[in-house]
Amino acid sequence: MTFNTINTINTIPNKTFAPLKNDSYLRALRQESTEYIPVWLMRQAGRYLPEYLATRVRAGSFMNLAMNPDLACEVTLQPLDRYPQLDAAILFSDILTVPDAMGLELSFATGEGPKFAKPLRHESDVLALQVPDLNRLKYVFDAVHTIRHALNGRVPLIGFSGSPWTLACYMVEGSGSADFRTIKTMLYSRPDLIKHIMTVNETAVAQYLLEQVKSGAQALMLFDTWGGILPDGIYQKISLASMSRVISSVKQHFPDMPITVFTKGGGIWLNDIINCGADCVGLDWTVNLGQARRLANNKVALQGNIDPFLLMGSNKKIEYYVHNSLLTYHTINGNNIGHIFNLGHGINQFTPPAAVNTLLEAVKQFKVASI
Amino acid sequence: MTFNTINTINTIPNKTFAPLKNDSYLRALRQESTEYIPVWLMRQAGRYLPEYLATRVRAGSFMNLAMNPDLACEVTLQPLDRYPQLDAAILFSDILTVPDAMGLELSFATGEGPKFAKPLRHESDVLALQVPDLNRLKYVFDAVHTIRHALNGRVPLIGFSGSPWTLACYMVEGSGSADFRTIKTMLYSRPDLIKHIMTVNETAVAQYLLEQVKSGAQALMLFDTWGGILPDGIYQKISLASMSRVISSVKQHFPDMPITVFTKGGGIWLNDIINCGADCVGLDWTVNLGQARRLANNKVALQGNIDPFLLMGSNKKIEYYVHNSLLTYHTINGNNIGHIFNLGHGINQFTPPAAVNTLLEAVKQFKVASI
Repeated sequence: MTFNTINTINTIPNKTFAPLKNDSYLRALRQESTEYIPVWLMRQAGRYLPEYLATRVRAGSFMNLAMNPDLACEVTLQPLDRYPQLDAAILFSDILTVPDAMGLELSFATGEGPKFAKPLRHESDVLALQVPDLNRLKYVFDAVHTIRHALNGRVPLIGFSGSPWTLACYMVEGSGSADFRTIKTMLYSRPDLIKHIMTVNETAVAQYLLEQVKSGAQALMLFDTWGGILPDGIYQKISLASMSRVISSVKQHFPDMPITVFTKGGGIWLNDIINCGADCVGLDWTVNLGQARRLANNKVALQGNIDPFLLMGSNKKIEYYVHNSLLTYHTINGNNIGHIFNLGHGINQFTPPAAVNTLLEAVKQFKVASI
Repeated sequence: MTFNTINTINTIPNKTFAPLKNDSYLRALRQESTEYIPVWLMRQAGRYLPEYLATRVRAGSFMNLAMNPDLACEVTLQPLDRYPQLDAAILFSDILTVPDAMGLELSFATGEGPKFAKPLRHESDVLALQVPDLNRLKYVFDAVHTIRHALNGRVPLIGFSGSPWTLACYMVEGSGSADFRTIKTMLYSRPDLIKHIMTVNETAVAQYLLEQVKSGAQALMLFDTWGGILPDGIYQKISLASMSRVISSVKQHFPDMPITVFTKGGGIWLNDIINCGADCVGLDWTVNLGQARRLANNKVALQGNIDPFLLMGSNKKIEYYVHNSLLTYHTINGNNIGHIFNLGHGINQFTPPAAVNTLLEAVKQFKVASI
């Protein structure tokens, strides 16, 4: 069962969804003109919102929340209700659901990052690793389906996955890391084990994303949070190449499904990333938007890239930096397309919700003369 | 009292040092030809060496070690004794000596990073900040003088400082940080306070480096460990501009003193960094050496850039990646000058000392046809 254009996804058998009312995000991904600069924010549903915290308390834990499609739907919609400026919704979930389904046992202690009870530390752990039964991730696909229905065509729904390499980092380290010594030691001493993990992850991520599309996702994003820790050359060969193959797999079935890749700290490799087959490349705040646009040269749309901590600043500073950043992109040649405003990383939990409104207003009020 | 050429530094009054036997590092900094690729390694004296650990036990603490010129000299020389391939010595000290002298009270708990007892958290802390009395840093200058004498002309001695911005990060955060939320909040909400800290740091760093030169340092390096956390535009305006002014100050007195700047994560800004007035730019492992060379276009020498965790790999992998990295730089046009081999960050404490030897041999055995 394949679908040739994004429009036909609305007609997946047994899954009739409401027509889309706001397609500015999808149009920007396709580098078509839009009336304004579309915007969404990484981690727009999350701990900085009191309504999210209330739902999480009801859920009992982060994992309970993420694994309950109705609650995941509830928190996905919260930022859209608070900020009508948002032009896309993103599935509320975690990038580590896939390794959890592989049996690594994900948990989140209060106030801490993710932790795996069974990280891949020995050769035998690695060789036992298998692509998970997708039924173990049914809660994610159910959430996608529930959210897509609840959105009722308001804005498009973004599905996502951690990149194969970023999943591997967490799977080997067992958690986040300051220096990724464990996985780098494996990389340089047992590259065969890394290759095995990457092959499994690549297949799993492709299947996971395909199933999200079949469940109702209208765009996809690969979060390569830890690609930037790799050396030049190895990044391209390991992380980027695997994302490229994931994109090919998805596009075999859904050629027009727009896919964004985001390697944090990958700005230096932009010239390689724009050629990986993605429709859009996410940028962090170290990248100059205007320079990135010249380099991308209409090959891909660009998403980003304000420092999330700007939201800790005064309204004046937020407006100033947003305006300055947008000017670098949107005044080059009058062809102001292909940009989706976003942060360069997820919203921090200590962000004042009012600052997010100031940011979104600054984007919406930016005058793009020639759009 | 000013000195116009690096050679005259040997004749600083009352400080007659032995003539230099191995000047390959200084020649490479000046982009003069050398018989081989000179090499030194960031944090080459440190916890990965058993002889260092023994001295540190004797000293009682890291700070006792760093503040005792004879012990600092002892550990500075240890890697040179173990690895005759090294072409430079670097003062054993910490980048946070300057804020410690400002009264922030530096300490190192066992197994942990640096911590300040009195970080700059309130406006009053910031406004009370002053350029420290250089007498409080006399132990550093004494160490430089002692080491320079003990080296007896074997290799040049590198003095160093943390960059004004990197010092500011530690001073405000009070320690390392995963996200630098505290200083970024100050940056975006009270830029006037950041400006005050930077002005004080800039003056202090310039004075600190000048005094190291007067004490016997033959080259200088600015470690901008946290420049890479800044957004494009702000990095250039705050961190890079302040390093540029420090370089100008030093060069006013010692025009030929070679100075290296190293912004970790700054590869994307290389085009700006090569124009900051430094003689040499340090690169981390995300940068392609060959591309960096083309961009630098003989404006500066380049230092770097192997991932320190490569040293966790097999000998074969170490040799392979060193060779591959060197090939990108040293085969472009036969003019194989201006490269100093180094890592892209300090040696990790868990590095096997034998791996360092493998790495250094791989560099020394690399055949540069046209040098």
